[in-house]
Amino acid sequence: MKYPLSPEVKPEFCTTGSFVRLPEQRENAKLAIIGMPFDTAASFRVGARFAPQAIRQASMTLFPYHPIHKVYPFDETNAIDIGDVSVIPHNIHKSYELMEEAVKGLMEKGIIPIGLGGDHSITLASLRAAAKVHGPVALIHFDSHTDTWDTYYEEKYWHGSPFIRAHEEGLVDPSKVFQIGIRGTLNHPGDVQESYELGYNVITTHDLEQMGFESVLTKMRNVIGDTPVFLTFDIDFVDPSCAPGTGTLEVGGFSSRETLQMIRSLTGFNYIGFDVVEVLPQYDQTQITALLAATIVHDFASLAALKIKEQKE
Amino acid sequence: MKYPLSPEVKPEFCTTGSFVRLPEQRENAKLAIIGMPFDTAASFRVGARFAPQAIRQASMTLFPYHPIHKVYPFDETNAIDIGDVSVIPHNIHKSYELMEEAVKGLMEKGIIPIGLGGDHSITLASLRAAAKVHGPVALIHFDSHTDTWDTYYEEKYWHGSPFIRAHEEGLVDPSKVFQIGIRGTLNHPGDVQESYELGYNVITTHDLEQMGFESVLTKMRNVIGDTPVFLTFDIDFVDPSCAPGTGTLEVGGFSSRETLQMIRSLTGFNYIGFDVVEVLPQYDQTQITALLAATIVHDFASLAALKIKEQKE
Amino acid sequence: MKYPLSPEVKPEFCTTGSFVRLPEQRENAKLAIIGMPFDTAASFRVGARFAPQAIRQASMTLFPYHPIHKVYPFDETNAIDIGDVSVIPHNIHKSYELMEEAVKGLMEKGIIPIGLGGDHSITLASLRAAAKVHGPVALIHFDSHTDTWDTYYEEKYWHGSPFIRAHEEGLVDPSKVFQIGIRGTLNHPGDVQESYELGYNVITTHDLEQMGFESVLTKMRNVIGDTPVFLTFDIDFVDPSCAPGTGTLEVGGFSSRETLQMIRSLTGFNYIGFDVVEVLPQYDQTQITALLAATIVHDFASLAALKIKEQKE
Amino acid sequence: MKYPLSPEVKPEFCTTGSFVRLPEQRENAKLAIIGMPFDTAASFRVGARFAPQAIRQASMTLFPYHPIHKVYPFDETNAIDIGDVSVIPHNIHKSYELMEEAVKGLMEKGIIPIGLGGDHSITLASLRAAAKVHGPVALIHFDSHTDTWDTYYEEKYWHGSPFIRAHEEGLVDPSKVFQIGIRGTLNHPGDVQESYELGYNVITTHDLEQMGFESVLTKMRNVIGDTPVFLTFDIDFVDPSCAPGTGTLEVGGFSSRETLQMIRSLTGFNYIGFDVVEVLPQYDQTQITALLAATIVHDFASLAALKIKEQKE
Amino acid sequence: MKYPLSPEVKPEFCTTGSFVRLPEQRENAKLAIIGMPFDTAASFRVGARFAPQAIRQASMTLFPYHPIHKVYPFDETNAIDIGDVSVIPHNIHKSYELMEEAVKGLMEKGIIPIGLGGDHSITLASLRAAAKVHGPVALIHFDSHTDTWDTYYEEKYWHGSPFIRAHEEGLVDPSKVFQIGIRGTLNHPGDVQESYELGYNVITTHDLEQMGFESVLTKMRNVIGDTPVFLTFDIDFVDPSCAPGTGTLEVGGFSSRETLQMIRSLTGFNYIGFDVVEVLPQYDQTQITALLAATIVHDFASLAALKIKEQKE
Amino acid sequence: MKYPLSPEVKPEFCTTGSFVRLPEQRENAKLAIIGMPFDTAASFRVGARFAPQAIRQASMTLFPYHPIHKVYPFDETNAIDIGDVSVIPHNIHKSYELMEEAVKGLMEKGIIPIGLGGDHSITLASLRAAAKVHGPVALIHFDSHTDTWDTYYEEKYWHGSPFIRAHEEGLVDPSKVFQIGIRGTLNHPGDVQESYELGYNVITTHDLEQMGFESVLTKMRNVIGDTPVFLTFDIDFVDPSCAPGTGTLEVGGFSSRETLQMIRSLTGFNYIGFDVVEVLPQYDQTQITALLAATIVHDFASLAALKIKEQKE
Repeated sequence: MKYPLSPEVKPEFCTTGSFVRLPEQRENAKLAIIGMPFDTAASFRVGARFAPQAIRQASMTLFPYHPIHKVYPFDETNAIDIGDVSVIPHNIHKSYELMEEAVKGLMEKGIIPIGLGGDHSITLASLRAAAKVHGPVALIHFDSHTDTWDTYYEEKYWHGSPFIRAHEEGLVDPSKVFQIGIRGTLNHPGDVQESYELGYNVITTHDLEQMGFESVLTKMRNVIGDTPVFLTFDIDFVDPSCAPGTGTLEVGGFSSRETLQMIRSLTGFNYIGFDVVEVLPQYDQTQITALLAATIVHDFASLAALKIKEQKE
Repeated sequence: MKYPLSPEVKPEFCTTGSFVRLPEQRENAKLAIIGMPFDTAASFRVGARFAPQAIRQASMTLFPYHPIHKVYPFDETNAIDIGDVSVIPHNIHKSYELMEEAVKGLMEKGIIPIGLGGDHSITLASLRAAAKVHGPVALIHFDSHTDTWDTYYEEKYWHGSPFIRAHEEGLVDPSKVFQIGIRGTLNHPGDVQESYELGYNVITTHDLEQMGFESVLTKMRNVIGDTPVFLTFDIDFVDPSCAPGTGTLEVGGFSSRETLQMIRSLTGFNYIGFDVVEVLPQYDQTQITALLAATIVHDFASLAALKIKEQKE
Repeated sequence: MKYPLSPEVKPEFCTTGSFVRLPEQRENAKLAIIGMPFDTAASFRVGARFAPQAIRQASMTLFPYHPIHKVYPFDETNAIDIGDVSVIPHNIHKSYELMEEAVKGLMEKGIIPIGLGGDHSITLASLRAAAKVHGPVALIHFDSHTDTWDTYYEEKYWHGSPFIRAHEEGLVDPSKVFQIGIRGTLNHPGDVQESYELGYNVITTHDLEQMGFESVLTKMRNVIGDTPVFLTFDIDFVDPSCAPGTGTLEVGGFSSRETLQMIRSLTGFNYIGFDVVEVLPQYDQTQITALLAATIVHDFASLAALKIKEQKE
Repeated sequence: MKYPLSPEVKPEFCTTGSFVRLPEQRENAKLAIIGMPFDTAASFRVGARFAPQAIRQASMTLFPYHPIHKVYPFDETNAIDIGDVSVIPHNIHKSYELMEEAVKGLMEKGIIPIGLGGDHSITLASLRAAAKVHGPVALIHFDSHTDTWDTYYEEKYWHGSPFIRAHEEGLVDPSKVFQIGIRGTLNHPGDVQESYELGYNVITTHDLEQMGFESVLTKMRNVIGDTPVFLTFDIDFVDPSCAPGTGTLEVGGFSSRETLQMIRSLTGFNYIGFDVVEVLPQYDQTQITALLAATIVHDFASLAALKIKEQKE
Repeated sequence: MKYPLSPEVKPEFCTTGSFVRLPEQRENAKLAIIGMPFDTAASFRVGARFAPQAIRQASMTLFPYHPIHKVYPFDETNAIDIGDVSVIPHNIHKSYELMEEAVKGLMEKGIIPIGLGGDHSITLASLRAAAKVHGPVALIHFDSHTDTWDTYYEEKYWHGSPFIRAHEEGLVDPSKVFQIGIRGTLNHPGDVQESYELGYNVITTHDLEQMGFESVLTKMRNVIGDTPVFLTFDIDFVDPSCAPGTGTLEVGGFSSRETLQMIRSLTGFNYIGFDVVEVLPQYDQTQITALLAATIVHDFASLAALKIKEQKE
Repeated sequence: MKYPLSPEVKPEFCTTGSFVRLPEQRENAKLAIIGMPFDTAASFRVGARFAPQAIRQASMTLFPYHPIHKVYPFDETNAIDIGDVSVIPHNIHKSYELMEEAVKGLMEKGIIPIGLGGDHSITLASLRAAAKVHGPVALIHFDSHTDTWDTYYEEKYWHGSPFIRAHEEGLVDPSKVFQIGIRGTLNHPGDVQESYELGYNVITTHDLEQMGFESVLTKMRNVIGDTPVFLTFDIDFVDPSCAPGTGTLEVGGFSSRETLQMIRSLTGFNYIGFDVVEVLPQYDQTQITALLAATIVHDFASLAALKIKEQKE
């Protein structure tokens, strides 16, 4: 093996720094950061392949303790960072297989993955893994788009379709899917309608403004109960002023402060996986998008830690 | 005619891409995008001449349907994009004439123009056209400044004076002028006083915080009624975090989300023209200002479409 | 003396432009802008040494009159800008001495200083000066961090410790210290606890969301009364979307609009000094952080002017 | 058809502005600009899909006459800009077909295409078209890499392999292939060796420094003679100081001035096509890469015009 | 007088920092820096009004001694920085008058001005002043354009015409005008021809590459002799890699190192004025253009100092 | 130990990615990358503490084989990357001790260090280590400044003084010190003189232009012979167009291509250490400075590998 490692050993966009300097492995790990730098299913801007390294770099200024949840998320869970999956930009199916295998490997060992995307298509790989290990799951999905658009120039697999594919493949329990924050202009009225027809719960930004997050939360608790939950967070849920570094910006979203309040209220679910997707570092000149993503990962880890702590008790 | 076209045929800052790829003409057009890249009436930062192309470029990610107004704005109106007026940076009066003529040409054919500025002085040209076609108009004016400062080094025509000139020239019905969002430090207490003395309605950001937009809206509906309305939007109305790419930034404004809520409530007026001004792309590194402007154009087109639809019915 | 002035006469990062083009001296001055470009006590990003010049440059678009406080702050106070203290980046103690001396010189003449940092460690120098002239002072401290962390690699003087040092040195009256806006992940639960143990009042961002600023203000008025007050403002109090140009960003803060509302309510205190710290221009591509800081200086000057005006009457 | 055009009618990254405002068609056209915004065959940075619009935008400051070649390139050739091929980011083979078809269509009509990439894989599509119309062609290839690396994670089609594929498919006459400017670290000594083994002529940057471009030119003239020539220019041939906006930067290249001198000496060949590839606008903050590319297109058009002019005479 | 100074007292883009911290006046001054922030005669990008402050800021890292000319330029000449002329962006003629008056005032006192533009049209104001004081002058003009284009949309005064106007007004001795570095595409062959017809000496970049600067220098010495010389330097003479922050970039120019060599050889002329124009800070992200301009000012000051020193001896 | 690691375990600016993904240790290592992120001895811009991570990140696109030296530098030497020294920004002496210790530890084991600065003051720590292990060394020093300025505001240790300190401490053999590339304005003629008086060989950029690098090389070979050599490279040796991301830019330097030619000719010396200093990533928007630094490290590793290979043979 020669250094620099050949791009074929590890693509050049997969670096070796770890989130908050976590070790690559340790005993009794219950939580793992995993980079999923696949982005060629994007239809407009590309570059989320550089997100895992940017989020890890931004994580350096985080501290160990979560002041609201009152927990040390990475210690409570013996968290690890297993690095990036060696995805192949030009081969979406092979990349999905590699990511699914990596995520499944974690889940089978009882380790909760926090995926760092990548474009939103990577969630399909995680849901495939989740369904194999846990059966059809509940899905809490923050996004400004439903990502249930059938095809793009006849291509079925792209970052606009993961949640119609997940439905087709039976990976989710449709009535337990919540798509939160949808906004922006539409292709046609059916765009959102499609999600309804799949049986999904769609809560638009407009809805949230009208009814508040509290009532959404109540409904989610009632409907989801103890079902295993995957939480996927597309950074474009947040307003572009707080998250300019993404691919398909929609103005008019909630602020970082409002967003963190929502996330921090999501306690008590039976989480089996998380991801943060669609961060594009080359459009993130001030690096605030990557920092927001890293902070969200800290929050996700805290939600996982609370669950694990509770199980111990 | 030789290619590249000589700058004298068309200035180099006027490009040929169109908003959301609209055609340059089609039958029965009721709405037109028109670039007005004049910016040398600015007193501080310059560069709004590049705004039309930046806004058009940002428009590429918009979709056809407006989810709140439930309308296809560009199809309902057979919208066109007639390109940019060939303004002359060094000649403000000639530029005004060219812009007035272009806008008047549209209005005479019953086409509602949406102007892409340019600095705010361009609105004077549009109001001249509007007054010739419709008589003195009502004005809904979003801005952090009143733009009723008389002169600048003895110059009467600059981007701080269009609305005192409009008053002098009888282009607006003063009691039906609403200046919304005024904030920031002042030259002297009389700065805002001047607008009051012109008979204008001034609603500062501080006022809006106190009384809410709803009550402003009610007053506007009562006062304006069916009078033809021109809506002018200076992007510096919005907080710099959401619109950094502008010339005279004032911190402490409303967010994009709050702004869109206000705009979306402005249904039912008899619109005869719109513009969005003071976008400066070279200060808009993340391009979120241009995207906000493009989204506002989509909203303006929807307001126009609602009116046209109503007229048909 | 040769030109360019040798860096030993004045470090290269100290420029000669003044805030809103104030004179360097004039009779009966009651307020002074003073640059304090020391930043080598920072533990992560550095570069606040360039903040005084950036804030001065951003101040050029401000106007003389404050519309809410209805005062001309710089004229009411005969304000001056005495330039930058010639700090020495590699010598923290010498730099503190130079800054303390400069601030004390102003305070002894009855001139209220508004310091332009620099990292937050500079406030210790100002508090030393203040305590010598006024005795232990009350402190209103906006920040996302308490800055009461004892040491950093055994170093006692750095930008994370000024308020534990101020306590040790008896520069503040602990019960009259209010730390407002604390948020973000913590090193351990004791991080904030430490401030409580010093006798300080800590109001986190979470607290503010729950109880509103009004109740904090009421408590401050009751507790502080007429005690001389130093107001220190770390720009990272504000959300990174509004203030990206700083060193240790914490997402989830208040917006510029919300922040200005808080500051504008702080009338009636017996102010003896102010500062704005932790602006890092090289991370402030859109220059909105510097403009926010300059606007805050205008507000601080207005608070000082109100006090001075009142004293005259 | 609804506006905004659906991304399925035309991907959002294909805009409608044209190079130097050329018309989309005119009689007796002999030269065509064609956008080929395919970039998902890239192995590191992505984003060349935005190059055609950036190059067109940069072209606005060009003038009609070439002072060295003494020709009006776009008028001599009745040049047109036929817009962008609607490539599909997630489907490399379909995209190749679409591009090949478009280029072939031009070549069959005797129109010389100047392709605006896209990553370097697009040249394979053009060479397939060229070979069908003209038989195996000569290739003048400026680049810092040979792009003859066989596979990338078993994928045969990517931006590192077009010239090994072109050899396999018999699209070029190997002895008439000149790869000029190769430099940078290598995977192994065989990297360049591979090109030699294909029968290609490899002239490294080091070679050029030693022997000058003049001798390379002489050899090319002797070897190529009247064979139809395709000229492909990877912008990373040029030093990153002159072309920072690209995907796989190699420091130590020639300057823009030196590069233009080389290009301008390439008269007298029987050109049947050109392209400029690997411009990545989001890494081109100063826009000098796009301007260099636009200038090179002007030069290519002049080389084409000289040939056409000569044929007429 | 109220602070902030009203924009009418001094436009907001005129700041108060001085070049290398020179005093505003001192006895026996022989050299003066003067800001000429007029830019609305530009036909494409605008923003050179911010150049004087950017160049002054960049000057802070310069040192007093010129190592090649072995002189302390600012001390030998008792140099001063008299700040910026209060130009009026919307009134070109009034601005010319103000600039002419300021420059003439200096020249009449035997003070050599170094103007900081502004767009290139400002040189006309300086030449008018020079001709009044010294009669028709010789002109050494570095630029990529001849700036002898007659009109722009019928406007005679713009940044493309100063040297045809200077000819018409008899401000220069045509045979003693040297335009050096012309390059780039042309409007038509006559573009450069026009300069020849005016009797000017045009040396293109291509010529310089062929014959070297030495022979140009020899010719200039022979032709110009002791005639008073004005030296005007358009920063776009230099390659965009070294000077990206300008308005009409032409790739393919000389590097900073090559440029400084040329400038440093220009000893022995009877200089009566200098300027550096067309720096646009908002396009100069790395600030290297402003630093190059500041360094050129240091060099110009050294050339002036050598002349003055010689006169003394 | 809690995660995120406390900044006291490892400062936040020390990340965990390695250069070209080298391992942290392996058997028979002869070469080590070592990060030395100390930057608070800088007198102007700060931020070189982030250089090690930026250079490592840029190294990802390098390949294993050096085409000119025909060697695999990292394999020939079993190279490792031992991470960053945990320097303390506020304590220069403690930081020097930590760096010296780390470098000495490597040298004692026969491992050649390649230090990634940091500001130039770090070289003093390396020279102290080198002198302890090897005795006074020869020094090849590329820079635009001599860094032999005695004090800065009475501080002896800063980034302008390492080579006067090294002389005082007897760490170098003065006659074997070569300072190459000195240029730019000076404080006084003595600035360079000082180096001469120390017995150093100073070759300015002007000298290099006159006499070429070849003759410098010959002299160095003659004078240095087999003496152990430390090679220190200040990135500001290179022209700012090729290396904008540094702290004290001097325009008018050599290009990357010319620089690499010089470095590549430096074969045959008895190297015992290297470093690359003064890269400031936050001023390196295009990342070309970091890539140049990474490429230089590859070259340094190759020079080390050639020496080691030779010793084996």
